[in-house]
Amino acid sequence: MACFLSDNTAPAHPRVIEAMGKALSTEGLAYGQDRESLRCQELFRDRLGESARAYAVSTGSAANVLGLKSLVDRHEAVVCAASAHINQDECAAPEAVGGFKLIPLRHEDGRIAPVDLPPLLAAKGFVHHAQPKVVSITQCTEYGALYPMETIRAIADFAHSNDMLLHMDGARLANACAALNCSLKSMTTDLGVDALSFGGTKNGCAMAEAVVFLREGVGETFPYLRKQTLQLNSKMRLISAQFCAYFEDDLWLACAQQANNAAVRLAELAGNVPGVEITRPVETNAVFARPPAGAVEPLQARYPFYMWDEGAGEARWMCSWSTSNEDIESFVRALEEASNAS
Amino acid sequence: MACFLSDNTAPAHPRVIEAMGKALSTEGLAYGQDRESLRCQELFRDRLGESARAYAVSTGSAANVLGLKSLVDRHEAVVCAASAHINQDECAAPEAVGGFKLIPLRHEDGRIAPVDLPPLLAAKGFVHHAQPKVVSITQCTEYGALYPMETIRAIADFAHSNDMLLHMDGARLANACAALNCSLKSMTTDLGVDALSFGGTKNGCAMAEAVVFLREGVGETFPYLRKQTLQLNSKMRLISAQFCAYFEDDLWLACAQQANNAAVRLAELAGNVPGVEITRPVETNAVFARPPAGAVEPLQARYPFYMWDEGAGEARWMCSWSTSNEDIESFVRALEEASNAS
Amino acid sequence: MACFLSDNTAPAHPRVIEAMGKALSTEGLAYGQDRESLRCQELFRDRLGESARAYAVSTGSAANVLGLKSLVDRHEAVVCAASAHINQDECAAPEAVGGFKLIPLRHEDGRIAPVDLPPLLAAKGFVHHAQPKVVSITQCTEYGALYPMETIRAIADFAHSNDMLLHMDGARLANACAALNCSLKSMTTDLGVDALSFGGTKNGCAMAEAVVFLREGVGETFPYLRKQTLQLNSKMRLISAQFCAYFEDDLWLACAQQANNAAVRLAELAGNVPGVEITRPVETNAVFARPPAGAVEPLQARYPFYMWDEGAGEARWMCSWSTSNEDIESFVRALEEASNAS
Amino acid sequence: MACFLSDNTAPAHPRVIEAMGKALSTEGLAYGQDRESLRCQELFRDRLGESARAYAVSTGSAANVLGLKSLVDRHEAVVCAASAHINQDECAAPEAVGGFKLIPLRHEDGRIAPVDLPPLLAAKGFVHHAQPKVVSITQCTEYGALYPMETIRAIADFAHSNDMLLHMDGARLANACAALNCSLKSMTTDLGVDALSFGGTKNGCAMAEAVVFLREGVGETFPYLRKQTLQLNSKMRLISAQFCAYFEDDLWLACAQQANNAAVRLAELAGNVPGVEITRPVETNAVFARPPAGAVEPLQARYPFYMWDEGAGEARWMCSWSTSNEDIESFVRALEEASNAS
Repeated sequence: MACFLSDNTAPAHPRVIEAMGKALSTEGLAYGQDRESLRCQELFRDRLGESARAYAVSTGSAANVLGLKSLVDRHEAVVCAASAHINQDECAAPEAVGGFKLIPLRHEDGRIAPVDLPPLLAAKGFVHHAQPKVVSITQCTEYGALYPMETIRAIADFAHSNDMLLHMDGARLANACAALNCSLKSMTTDLGVDALSFGGTKNGCAMAEAVVFLREGVGETFPYLRKQTLQLNSKMRLISAQFCAYFEDDLWLACAQQANNAAVRLAELAGNVPGVEITRPVETNAVFARPPAGAVEPLQARYPFYMWDEGAGEARWMCSWSTSNEDIESFVRALEEASNAS
Repeated sequence: MACFLSDNTAPAHPRVIEAMGKALSTEGLAYGQDRESLRCQELFRDRLGESARAYAVSTGSAANVLGLKSLVDRHEAVVCAASAHINQDECAAPEAVGGFKLIPLRHEDGRIAPVDLPPLLAAKGFVHHAQPKVVSITQCTEYGALYPMETIRAIADFAHSNDMLLHMDGARLANACAALNCSLKSMTTDLGVDALSFGGTKNGCAMAEAVVFLREGVGETFPYLRKQTLQLNSKMRLISAQFCAYFEDDLWLACAQQANNAAVRLAELAGNVPGVEITRPVETNAVFARPPAGAVEPLQARYPFYMWDEGAGEARWMCSWSTSNEDIESFVRALEEASNAS
Repeated sequence: MACFLSDNTAPAHPRVIEAMGKALSTEGLAYGQDRESLRCQELFRDRLGESARAYAVSTGSAANVLGLKSLVDRHEAVVCAASAHINQDECAAPEAVGGFKLIPLRHEDGRIAPVDLPPLLAAKGFVHHAQPKVVSITQCTEYGALYPMETIRAIADFAHSNDMLLHMDGARLANACAALNCSLKSMTTDLGVDALSFGGTKNGCAMAEAVVFLREGVGETFPYLRKQTLQLNSKMRLISAQFCAYFEDDLWLACAQQANNAAVRLAELAGNVPGVEITRPVETNAVFARPPAGAVEPLQARYPFYMWDEGAGEARWMCSWSTSNEDIESFVRALEEASNAS
Repeated sequence: MACFLSDNTAPAHPRVIEAMGKALSTEGLAYGQDRESLRCQELFRDRLGESARAYAVSTGSAANVLGLKSLVDRHEAVVCAASAHINQDECAAPEAVGGFKLIPLRHEDGRIAPVDLPPLLAAKGFVHHAQPKVVSITQCTEYGALYPMETIRAIADFAHSNDMLLHMDGARLANACAALNCSLKSMTTDLGVDALSFGGTKNGCAMAEAVVFLREGVGETFPYLRKQTLQLNSKMRLISAQFCAYFEDDLWLACAQQANNAAVRLAELAGNVPGVEITRPVETNAVFARPPAGAVEPLQARYPFYMWDEGAGEARWMCSWSTSNEDIESFVRALEEASNAS
């Protein structure tokens, strides 16, 4: 019963599994020349614009770090929220594998504020300072929060006005689009995002992540970089077939809506449990809450979940495409029992 | 009809596909704490010895470069055949991601000679030279050739007598074991191999490679390194389930025998075609041959394959677990036709 | 008249120049086997303890980054003040050349607070997080502020109790020792510092920086690392001779006292100029001040100096071993004139 | 008496020492804005052409590795002789700090053959292979041998015709120009060299090496890279003043001629000693010889020198600007005595 631990623990969607199996059952050219991989390129262009070039990789960290690496020269830095996955949860891959410096900014629920960007320009042209080149934002954030679309546009404009680029960590992009009721393209390409980490693994896929360059002139040598950084799979159709299924009939959207709806439902029910406080707005598929202190361990014993901030007693409960009403109701009953007993 | 282009183009085995699908159909803990991943560790210990610790990664290049990286300090180098995959076919990943220098040696069919190792010791202790720390051999080699087991033992003894380690690139280890009729353990751990790249992708799996440390004291911090180098998959059971199926009832062995047998058969038939010369001993699943010059392009148009050495007119024809007698016979007929017409 | 721009602009001390010239006038073994380099090792042991091993490098950034690199494994991180030179002024060398992540902490005048260290331990053992391994402090700080010796001891104790190490950026260590009236050893080795960047260039030398390991078991392979990172000079006596002169008759101390005294004097006189505010305690050789806004540019035109914080109108005036009373008086007169005119 | 061990053991020339001392006796702007550094730029332009931009660094290895790093993208490789300093004597700095792969070629006395270059083009455009981007040659080579100027021109033409660049390791460029009686510019810029490691340290300087870009469009971001790789000295005039003296009245040429002449003389006299064989042509300031086996150790005890190839019994005797006739005669007497006694 790991259903609220992470959206990573969910099953893959049956249509994804079926597509993988089918693609692997026959011979296929290696390194992305197979039928599914070629189809996959079309689908990405269809969903994200004519300039979109997608490169499958095996993890979300790979999508982030390698996409960013391809955007910076060796002396250039990436600006991000201090809470960003690249800064907190990738074991120094940006520095060690990417070779670039992160400049962490303060944040609110994982969102940086455009007002914090202009002061960074003071470093420009001074050889002692890493040169800020990319702003990386996460949509939705690690807290499940959403950037309003006009904020993304403002950050893109700032970046482009200052010879910088905008990168989006879209590990949960589907959840953001579902929540804001917009297309993938209107959330990314149309707002000026230059490069995107596109994630499927948390939302119905088994292992499907991609670096997607959204306009010409960025990522031109990425095919070499992907090979060099050990991410060029021989049977690429394993990943490509997943994306094909993911896009077909907007499976991505259905899965994300289900996850988001589950989070809303969970927050409603859990928020009604005496002693339980929902600590942040529930905008996508994450619920942050403060249960009674004594309830945490007994509840975790039945349903594992992360304490996001031990000091503050703040827990994170993640919903996924496969979270059922029954899961939610059972969990909330357990929460009630643990809270009452505490 | 890509069946002789590479063993990478083969389908995945139905039992592998089934295992993947099953593992992904239910919830599972992330990052290798799932049931299949835990079972997988047992199987590796069972097959390779009690000290074996296996870490799944997504590509064979990742297995090589990251395994090697974990064996060397920053100033230490890896000795290998000039023809080794790490030296030729990984787009400088050893240097750029591993950060280490390769010291290439001359080779015969991809095998280095033990006699070439002692001169390397002259560099020891001299700060101007990268310090040789690891010998990496490929079994079977990129030419399909086999190291005799006593040669591997001799290289291991040399390494261990000189504070060095032995690494084996086992992208096609199964084919080597099938050819020499020995167990996985007797070809690796028992001969003194310290770390192994264990490949399944070319032999029935869809994407299943692993770094395996075979004795205590090596690779101790590899869990961090794997995460940092972007290879820690969240739904690890995707890979682990493949290995479980691969080991069950020795599927690995059956697949490898089939591939090796196919190569023997192909070499026999092709070698009888007038004007076609088999250029190297066929020891595993690769056939190297020199067809008549005029036959190459017409044949490639029907059956794609690589010209290994354009200058020498030498072609490589790879067999896999799925190469059928009919594939072979059709190919040889096409070879005859092209040869006659040339 | 760059005398307050930086202590880097000062001349080298005549005794340093003489020693360099003498050492270079005759033949000498290369790469540190010369007479002056061997003598230099003795002097470092004499000043910093029997375990001290000093490695000359060409810049203070090199001393910091390479010393730190030798202390961390690839997945380990360095904790420092957000204001630290390594975080602000080394163009991402820690990340790009060191390969390690910096974890920046809030600071007061460049000093971190011991209370901010224990929360970092939450990352220990979790593969998704870079593992904190070294605390790096700057004594005196980039703001000229001093850590009390008991604070350094407390940080060292914390580090050593948690399998971590303490590094000190001592680019201006002499100024700190002069201010606190203590020996080099009592400020470093005796307080538990494991590795030290020892700087001479800002205090009378021409180009003399060193990585110094202060106890056994750290930096064991640094000779290789120094060569690999391009810092093994052939005519090492160029640097070693400077250190010999620097230590002789405590030239380092005399120079530092002169610089510190100059700063005190400058702060007194400048602080009396109407409209000028001294913004931070003057503890060593730096003076931070807020002149009237209109006075800045006219004054800079006569005496170049850095605006440390443009937004706050805060200027930095550095004193050196060569700053004379006349320099100070002329500068303060110019400050008065500019302030009056503003 | 280390006079034949290496040209690194020589004293610095008195005019160089004087210039350093003078430059350091007064205040000077930091990081290359000082008078001597500005003058130095003019001199390099004057000697190497209007597009020349010189960046001082502290070692020859730094000049090589950082210059090359600035010429390659992350997936591009450097072609060189297997005997090149970058491949043999820089402790894997090209790989570890440069991040690039070296492709070593066979050589004769350190010279590669143009005929070996075209086969490298087979890798172009294939993502599995590091892409050859730079050819690096050493003039004169590590064996003291010279490339004919037309060979350099041919290599440059090949490079430029194939979107590649030509780099020259000029650690002993002065000796080459002296031997071929040509100007610095006619040996480099005029032949199509794109970037140059310019060495002074072995030829009368104390520590003076530079990366020099010889035409527009290469090395544009090198100022950042130099800082990041820890080579931006604050008191840059220490190095710049040496170059100023080195160029004045062609001191570089006089020193190199003296060293070359000494080598010719040494080879003549030593070649006449019975049992001593001069093993390679003496074209610049290195003499390679095979003394009687029994003579080596007794001679080394009096005059240290390197055995270049222990197996072949081949010794290297280096001459420098300061090698006197008396040095040569004393050495040859000692050689005779050791040879007679052996």
